[in-house]
Amino acid sequence: MSVNTFGHLFRVTTWGESHGPALGATVDGCPPGVPVSEEALQVWLDKRKPGQNKYTTQRREADAVRILSGVFEGRSTGTPIQLMIENTDQRSKDYSEIARTFRPGHADITYHQKYGIRDYRGGGRSSARETAARVAAAGVARAALNALAPGIAITGYMVQMGPKKADPDRYDMDQVDQNPFWCPDPTVVELWADYLDSLRKSGNSVGAVIEVVATGVPAGLGAPVYGKLDSDLAAAMMSINAVKGVEIGEGMAAAALTGTENADEITLGPDGPDYSSNHAGGVLGGISTGQPVVVRFAVKPTSSILTPRRSITLDGAATEVVTKGRHDPCVGIRAVPVGEAMMACVLLDHLLLHRGQVGDAGGRIG
Amino acid sequence: MSVNTFGHLFRVTTWGESHGPALGATVDGCPPGVPVSEEALQVWLDKRKPGQNKYTTQRREADAVRILSGVFEGRSTGTPIQLMIENTDQRSKDYSEIARTFRPGHADITYHQKYGIRDYRGGGRSSARETAARVAAAGVARAALNALAPGIAITGYMVQMGPKKADPDRYDMDQVDQNPFWCPDPTVVELWADYLDSLRKSGNSVGAVIEVVATGVPAGLGAPVYGKLDSDLAAAMMSINAVKGVEIGEGMAAAALTGTENADEITLGPDGPDYSSNHAGGVLGGISTGQPVVVRFAVKPTSSILTPRRSITLDGAATEVVTKGRHDPCVGIRAVPVGEAMMACVLLDHLLLHRGQVGDAGGRIG
Amino acid sequence: MSVNTFGHLFRVTTWGESHGPALGATVDGCPPGVPVSEEALQVWLDKRKPGQNKYTTQRREADAVRILSGVFEGRSTGTPIQLMIENTDQRSKDYSEIARTFRPGHADITYHQKYGIRDYRGGGRSSARETAARVAAAGVARAALNALAPGIAITGYMVQMGPKKADPDRYDMDQVDQNPFWCPDPTVVELWADYLDSLRKSGNSVGAVIEVVATGVPAGLGAPVYGKLDSDLAAAMMSINAVKGVEIGEGMAAAALTGTENADEITLGPDGPDYSSNHAGGVLGGISTGQPVVVRFAVKPTSSILTPRRSITLDGAATEVVTKGRHDPCVGIRAVPVGEAMMACVLLDHLLLHRGQVGDAGGRIG
Amino acid sequence: MSVNTFGHLFRVTTWGESHGPALGATVDGCPPGVPVSEEALQVWLDKRKPGQNKYTTQRREADAVRILSGVFEGRSTGTPIQLMIENTDQRSKDYSEIARTFRPGHADITYHQKYGIRDYRGGGRSSARETAARVAAAGVARAALNALAPGIAITGYMVQMGPKKADPDRYDMDQVDQNPFWCPDPTVVELWADYLDSLRKSGNSVGAVIEVVATGVPAGLGAPVYGKLDSDLAAAMMSINAVKGVEIGEGMAAAALTGTENADEITLGPDGPDYSSNHAGGVLGGISTGQPVVVRFAVKPTSSILTPRRSITLDGAATEVVTKGRHDPCVGIRAVPVGEAMMACVLLDHLLLHRGQVGDAGGRIG
Repeated sequence: MSVNTFGHLFRVTTWGESHGPALGATVDGCPPGVPVSEEALQVWLDKRKPGQNKYTTQRREADAVRILSGVFEGRSTGTPIQLMIENTDQRSKDYSEIARTFRPGHADITYHQKYGIRDYRGGGRSSARETAARVAAAGVARAALNALAPGIAITGYMVQMGPKKADPDRYDMDQVDQNPFWCPDPTVVELWADYLDSLRKSGNSVGAVIEVVATGVPAGLGAPVYGKLDSDLAAAMMSINAVKGVEIGEGMAAAALTGTENADEITLGPDGPDYSSNHAGGVLGGISTGQPVVVRFAVKPTSSILTPRRSITLDGAATEVVTKGRHDPCVGIRAVPVGEAMMACVLLDHLLLHRGQVGDAGGRIG
Repeated sequence: MSVNTFGHLFRVTTWGESHGPALGATVDGCPPGVPVSEEALQVWLDKRKPGQNKYTTQRREADAVRILSGVFEGRSTGTPIQLMIENTDQRSKDYSEIARTFRPGHADITYHQKYGIRDYRGGGRSSARETAARVAAAGVARAALNALAPGIAITGYMVQMGPKKADPDRYDMDQVDQNPFWCPDPTVVELWADYLDSLRKSGNSVGAVIEVVATGVPAGLGAPVYGKLDSDLAAAMMSINAVKGVEIGEGMAAAALTGTENADEITLGPDGPDYSSNHAGGVLGGISTGQPVVVRFAVKPTSSILTPRRSITLDGAATEVVTKGRHDPCVGIRAVPVGEAMMACVLLDHLLLHRGQVGDAGGRIG
Repeated sequence: MSVNTFGHLFRVTTWGESHGPALGATVDGCPPGVPVSEEALQVWLDKRKPGQNKYTTQRREADAVRILSGVFEGRSTGTPIQLMIENTDQRSKDYSEIARTFRPGHADITYHQKYGIRDYRGGGRSSARETAARVAAAGVARAALNALAPGIAITGYMVQMGPKKADPDRYDMDQVDQNPFWCPDPTVVELWADYLDSLRKSGNSVGAVIEVVATGVPAGLGAPVYGKLDSDLAAAMMSINAVKGVEIGEGMAAAALTGTENADEITLGPDGPDYSSNHAGGVLGGISTGQPVVVRFAVKPTSSILTPRRSITLDGAATEVVTKGRHDPCVGIRAVPVGEAMMACVLLDHLLLHRGQVGDAGGRIG
Repeated sequence: MSVNTFGHLFRVTTWGESHGPALGATVDGCPPGVPVSEEALQVWLDKRKPGQNKYTTQRREADAVRILSGVFEGRSTGTPIQLMIENTDQRSKDYSEIARTFRPGHADITYHQKYGIRDYRGGGRSSARETAARVAAAGVARAALNALAPGIAITGYMVQMGPKKADPDRYDMDQVDQNPFWCPDPTVVELWADYLDSLRKSGNSVGAVIEVVATGVPAGLGAPVYGKLDSDLAAAMMSINAVKGVEIGEGMAAAALTGTENADEITLGPDGPDYSSNHAGGVLGGISTGQPVVVRFAVKPTSSILTPRRSITLDGAATEVVTKGRHDPCVGIRAVPVGEAMMACVLLDHLLLHRGQVGDAGGRIG
């Protein structure tokens, strides 16, 4: 309920501004005895870290995570785990302009209108840097999932950049780590590379669609009616900076289908119910079916572009904004590990919720 | 945090099964002194009520709401408002088949897997009847919005049925109440009517896309990072039965745009900031901009169809399911007032949250 | 977080006013498969029901509970359980006086100051009638405890009336149900009876102290730091009407002890740790030790008395208040089953919380 | 709902262990624009800091607080405020004994039984050091109260040490800061000093009673039924280490009073309702009356004493525990600023809750 917190039993509260001394996550409700180490968490942060290739911002952020509490002799104690990432790249620059001007597409104006005061440096609280804290917290969630439900695997990848979509028929998951776009379709990678080069040269940016799939999720996770698994996933993904749409399974395309087309027929497989298809995206009535949980979300194009855009100042005076500096031409790229992170947190949370209310009272089939 | 509750300060807990004695909503956190009456709430319930035209289920439900608490001499007292709707249409029918068979696309199987026990009559808790309680609760929210922010207006309408989309250039909001589809495009109505007739005759169903727009929403509503206005709206809409996708503003289409195209340029209008466009859908950084808040969601086709579909029984035996009886060929139609209801509840909740934390400390411009 | 709700995973939201159409409890988070019936719940309500002997108000309330949802074929389904108690004793009387006058010691004045509107009939929401809903909800909690932790037994009894205390050396728990005061000390019963008679005759009232003990509570329940078992118990008991103090184990008397006196020494018994004493009241660091959980709370004297008391009206005019009608000379008597109810709800809640976060990862000894 | 968090809108999550790298508080929901500085917070931490006189532990903790987020140019931004206190006094000592032995009266055994793993160094999470984080967070709450309700003043003091009580007739609030016991009764101070000296010499300890009073609290704060002001205060105080009892106004003594004695008669004063007495402790029906809010709590004697006590080891072997080292003979002394801290947090939280739901719709009198 805390507005900077998400989760029911596994609760993550992120804190910190882009250019403050530090940012981090307060992780509450982690099961005890889970192996947690700074090294293991760092792996996930490095995956998200900027400046790894020419397609992401060249800002240098160490993004080194420190564990300040809740872990003893390498294992979680069940008490709050405080994760801190110090901000190292705070070059003393002149913020006077951004302090008085609202960048179109950014939260500058709404933070001012809501709070009457804002830390404008680098976007403050609304900077995408906040997602580093999520990734760190999710590292803890992944470790707990590993211990409680080792069968679960989470994979995120980019399926669309601007108008150019990847082709599912060409998906090869081994490719995802082999290219700068986390793309499973090797053929589209070059297309995207050229496209992004031209965009960056022209001082423009573009949006993207990311898909996150969780396999091995046991049936029965989700808490109807308002703690539905898909409802919580929608909130989690929509809370990521720049996300404007979230889909489960068929998503928006479900509108165009007929009932006969959309039906996932059920048979009995060796390990329980088996389905002829997965239009549902692994969720029925807000509860997991045991099929892969499939979530997609759209990221809008980076608002920080070199092309001048009209805006106003604090006083309401007309002005023009050109965002110089080191920005991602396609923030969608770095949203991939963040989407994975949110999936991990939501799944662990529902695993604990289910264990708490139901235990092993769930129903068998066959 | 309660899994059958949504909202932070204005909290709605719905309860009840489709064929139990009654269902309803426990509404907590309503401001005191708000005019609330059964007559006023009934107006919204009647809008959602089935059997109003040949395109919705012919089930007859009085859906008469009773106020059991929290209202005194026609005004809310600030204590919990209990809204009860008795189930009148419980014809004693034979449920033995549905009791042992899982209907594809329904939550029968996941409820069984999660809880080990389910009220299978008419879908029990997972029936769309649950949305009647939301609409009743939203009637209270609307009354409170009326008192606290009379400028806010909420309109929901259908913009797509199956593959056939309405044309924004032809939108005429006065038309929305003039046709059975809540459609603002008169031209597409006939198309939809014929299409739905043929679908119903062939025992099939189809999905739809609903758009809900709230105008007059003051800037500054929303509580970053995880109580974002769009994040809460996404959860609220995704919690509606059969919804598979949620969009804010450009939604999934934002992925295909460039930064120059997507930028909503800012000028100073007579009443504060003015925007050249509304790709953002009225939300920046999770906080309202003062522009119309635009949400769209996709509803999958009704899973209850006459065409036989393969499934299994409790014992895992193969079977075929044909859903006879009175079902909506396009549940999207009746999802329109439900989408409006969720918008009303989320807006009131954030209005109270903002007043609580910030009061009138928000920033002015110009 | 919902202000009319208590509990983390097992959540009870009570609603309703003393003289409205009905009052009740919305119970969310009950484990599925628990046997729940109106008959079983009624047993607990009857224990609390007024008019059972000359020492409690002679108001006649059927207090018949109805289950409106969440129970199917005699067992909980895991969905919200709605419990409704209709108000049958609403004699149409003249409320004009109480409507404009604030009764000293009652919440009339604070409800008015907070909300600007109040249902003054019979105290409205602040009436002790609200506790009937707690007792009904606790009936569900008891059934769930029975299924999950059958070893737990909860007993409440009165240990002090006015200045007259019961003597622990004379406690005989079989006596508790044998007298109108739920008192384990038969000797003090007559004293109390005479004392209460004289008080009633003189139009006065008196306070009391109730003790509630839970035995068989497994070690490990409680969630530090702010979901401590004793912290939640304190909140639960203090939320009961007229309660002004709460004690765990030694309670306030712990202040007068030295460390050597207060230490509960530990040995290893046949079933795990054994303690030389229970000054701690079964809770260390907010977590249950496995010893009996001992809670005491003080109930202030009924504010409704025949002796005139000075007060003011809505307009601020001076007046005198004499509360006629049917009131308990010692509300503490009827607070006994309510204290038991809160204990049951808190214990179940923490049992589920513990299972959710920790499962069976707890530590063994010996 | 988060178990390491308290508060509804003003939410404090504390984290950290006694001998970990750091501990602190994540403060969410602070109103924007409130002046907050490390210097101002340090004042409160220094008041609680150990080693200030011979009656408190001689441990040296700098307890220097750092603000890591949520404050910009000296004012709160409305985003989470992260407060960190690094642990400087971590002398590398041998913990092997405490690691395997359970200290009577400490949470060693229950943490082990609950979590199966514990940070035993200095009591880990259950150490009273955790209260430093509360005091820091409360510094923020005090600043916000100062801005929103400057009339509120909070004073805590000790009213009983062991069996020796201070005499209200001798209370002089100017004395509170003039003695090591925060005692308003100068006469009892010497008695306590001698008493505590003898106890310390004999390796013993003793309990205490602390009273915290808030004046200037506006009428109308509190959210019935389960977010009552006194209910939240009871939970807050009971959550402080070693607290075993909480009282509001008359507290446990209310049990011995008659209705005529206990009635606080109402008259109309110059600034609204006036009361002949304050047996209620400033709360009626869970809502503030405008009178001083009076809370008392009992702190048990320090469990760490030099007198040997019987206990067991992890293996269940019998052993004897003598707690050497630097411990408070009366922890109650240092609980005074902690009680003030909890009062500040609860009051601010309810101030925001009330503003959110009710705004200025409260009722006037006269």
